[in-house]
Amino acid sequence: MAESRYETLARTLRRQIETQVWLPGDRLPSLRDTCKQSGLSLMTVLQAYQLLESQGVIVARPQSGYYVAAGAQRPVRAAADERLHAAEQVDVNDAIFDILKAGQDPFVVPLGSAFPDPTLFPQPRLARSLASAVRRMSPHSAIANLPPGNEELRRSIARRYAQNGIEVAPDEIVITSGAMESLGLSLQAVTEPGDWVAIESPAFYGVLQAIERRKLKAVAIPTDVRYGMDPDALQQALETYPVKACWLMSSFQNPLGCSLPPENKARLVELLQKHQVALIEDDVYNELHFGSERTVPLKASSYRSEILHCSSFSKSLAPGFRVGWVAAGAYAERIQRLQLMSTLSASVPVQLALADYLHKGGYDTHLRRLRRMLEQRQMAMRHAILAEFPAQVSVTQPAGGYFLWLDLGDNVDAARVYQRALAKGVSVAPGTMFSADERFSHCIRINTSFEWGPHTARAISVLAALVAEEING
Amino acid sequence: MAESRYETLARTLRRQIETQVWLPGDRLPSLRDTCKQSGLSLMTVLQAYQLLESQGVIVARPQSGYYVAAGAQRPVRAAADERLHAAEQVDVNDAIFDILKAGQDPFVVPLGSAFPDPTLFPQPRLARSLASAVRRMSPHSAIANLPPGNEELRRSIARRYAQNGIEVAPDEIVITSGAMESLGLSLQAVTEPGDWVAIESPAFYGVLQAIERRKLKAVAIPTDVRYGMDPDALQQALETYPVKACWLMSSFQNPLGCSLPPENKARLVELLQKHQVALIEDDVYNELHFGSERTVPLKASSYRSEILHCSSFSKSLAPGFRVGWVAAGAYAERIQRLQLMSTLSASVPVQLALADYLHKGGYDTHLRRLRRMLEQRQMAMRHAILAEFPAQVSVTQPAGGYFLWLDLGDNVDAARVYQRALAKGVSVAPGTMFSADERFSHCIRINTSFEWGPHTARAISVLAALVAEEING
Repeated sequence: MAESRYETLARTLRRQIETQVWLPGDRLPSLRDTCKQSGLSLMTVLQAYQLLESQGVIVARPQSGYYVAAGAQRPVRAAADERLHAAEQVDVNDAIFDILKAGQDPFVVPLGSAFPDPTLFPQPRLARSLASAVRRMSPHSAIANLPPGNEELRRSIARRYAQNGIEVAPDEIVITSGAMESLGLSLQAVTEPGDWVAIESPAFYGVLQAIERRKLKAVAIPTDVRYGMDPDALQQALETYPVKACWLMSSFQNPLGCSLPPENKARLVELLQKHQVALIEDDVYNELHFGSERTVPLKASSYRSEILHCSSFSKSLAPGFRVGWVAAGAYAERIQRLQLMSTLSASVPVQLALADYLHKGGYDTHLRRLRRMLEQRQMAMRHAILAEFPAQVSVTQPAGGYFLWLDLGDNVDAARVYQRALAKGVSVAPGTMFSADERFSHCIRINTSFEWGPHTARAISVLAALVAEEING
Repeated sequence: MAESRYETLARTLRRQIETQVWLPGDRLPSLRDTCKQSGLSLMTVLQAYQLLESQGVIVARPQSGYYVAAGAQRPVRAAADERLHAAEQVDVNDAIFDILKAGQDPFVVPLGSAFPDPTLFPQPRLARSLASAVRRMSPHSAIANLPPGNEELRRSIARRYAQNGIEVAPDEIVITSGAMESLGLSLQAVTEPGDWVAIESPAFYGVLQAIERRKLKAVAIPTDVRYGMDPDALQQALETYPVKACWLMSSFQNPLGCSLPPENKARLVELLQKHQVALIEDDVYNELHFGSERTVPLKASSYRSEILHCSSFSKSLAPGFRVGWVAAGAYAERIQRLQLMSTLSASVPVQLALADYLHKGGYDTHLRRLRRMLEQRQMAMRHAILAEFPAQVSVTQPAGGYFLWLDLGDNVDAARVYQRALAKGVSVAPGTMFSADERFSHCIRINTSFEWGPHTARAISVLAALVAEEING
């Protein structure tokens, strides 16, 4: 027997409640609105609502309307999820997605996360800057702040470069929706699909994904756990392959935490210049140095017009704002054009808020505190790792950032450690995330930005015990 | 003779002033900070500052420091600009970039702009929502609002779908940094480089750029100035080429302003379903209908799990916020993963502000006013065009949105009209922007969202006279 009209409507409403379009306690659209929208008669709509009421899905409140019942059924998985599963033709590493999602789970200690502890940032001050910026926002600001982005913000960034002795004009800075966009646009600006790109090994997984997405060929350059990308290996690669671009992190590299020594920087620049290779310099951790000396990016060299220096406020000031930039040298206009065709521009209110914050001062005070906290937290976690992990495990000691890189030993499978740890409420980043091959399958990256306390202490003990079990077989 | 150290420092500072790192009236870094940063002696730094002072570039103020002089020289073009010129290997149509830039020039009437008049939006209400949202923002919000994005906002969007009789669960919605990102991610989700995609002709130029960027092959389907994409032509294309995806605008198409009639929608859906082709439905103008009836997207059909419905708040509520979404059907998780690797997530404060605004109500009241204004403005401008332009010019009469499409006649070169109009302070969008070939080289698109007054009236008269001149040779 065919379903009647009111049954069809009731089924639609029930599905909306099941998929959480309406939550328990929500008022449903009025009978009148539903008639108007559906083209059904008042009688049909009323029958549908009464059917749902009789099934306990909704309740009527006199003179008010129909509300979703407190106990309205919620199926274990919504229909949309099942469809998702069928289409799951994923091209990114599942672990990356799982680790990002684990970061949202309050029951998992997110040592595998790439994000710094969100409580480290001056939230109230940023909120004040945002409120103050939007009060002064003109209707024309949406257009005035199109690429290259807010002028005051670009000038503030240029001044920070100037104060560190780096020549960057406000004109070559393009504000983006975070460093990830800066890097993607930079890669598009200097390569065509099929081109060769020299990258670090191990590398930030975003590099690997971007390379795959743009159908580029990667030459993985061995990257030393202390001194970064190996200049001899880069030289060999540049002499062997027609490399169009090089992508590296000069400071507190992700995942190793290493920074390039000055003599290696000089050699790398010389090589890139000789072979006319553009450099994408990912420098998002630059502000997070523990010592009083900051690291100097390759952008400070005379080759700067061919260096696209990418950074953001996401690791140092305002993680959720999604504001970054690229000091793009000769490629500034090209980057703007690419951005106009991908995200159009960075969100205006947050650009204005950051311009306001930087103008009012206090960033350096915040950074000094942030660096001190990160150093203390790294020290505490590293100390516990050294004390509890089996002796065969080696651990780095970066001079900035918030990552430790642990080599668990050749006989340990980090993917297993990752899986087992996740089941016990601890996430780590397995080494396989940072390479297209299995080279780092016995390594893990640990985020040290979280406060040392019972949760983190327990997490380290859990990991130490797991690793010991894996070693002993 | 080699330059001395103080001369080098003075030259660096002078360049910083020339490139506007420091503006007239700004205080330069103190002598002490400059010593510390540069590693130079106090004497050397002092000499450099005194040299600049003697050249009138900076001035000393007792007990305060050195300031950039009011008349400090500003060269016509900064060094960065010259470098830019050399690297200008652009892959996007220059006209697009110029028109976007012309929109920022207060002396140009931006009839070629794609943006609605920014004064049409409820700026003060949005500012209040932003201020209120950030006050309640927790440090964890950056992580809680990662893809798929803010839950409350997704639910509000799902409710608007539900109220229009369209089945979309909050779970299949992914919040993006604007519709342009939604469209780009959707294209990535359903195609691989080299695939065939059916698009409209003429089409929004963002489509053409995205297709080129992803190295896809486009089949341009004739699109009627009143009825949109031609189903017969689509059928032929699907029978001839292995088309993987179709991209179209069902409502108030850019640039034509047309909407698909119901019978054509039904035929298009049937064809797509038969050939198993995913649909990217760009529906950013959906809310801008003049009549009381809204247009129904193809997403409302039973084929919805294969339809990626892309929209945003940029045309209807908050242009500068850069918040959009895609109701991605079966591709929701895939879109999330792609987003995590390109921009990570939409900016958090603006997501929260929109959730707050939609929760508090008032959106529909704003929309009713907006639609009325847009209709009146279109009417005024269209009336003037009909009165002043030569008789051979034809002009559309869309039932929503804010574009008019003018066919100037085969003997008119719209690119020339564009160039000549720009020189007289009026921008238009030449038809060549909307096609990979010269098919629309005699058409222009006009933005009608601006208030009718002396500026717009003059702009229309300027255009009418120019077109008459072009026709009369």
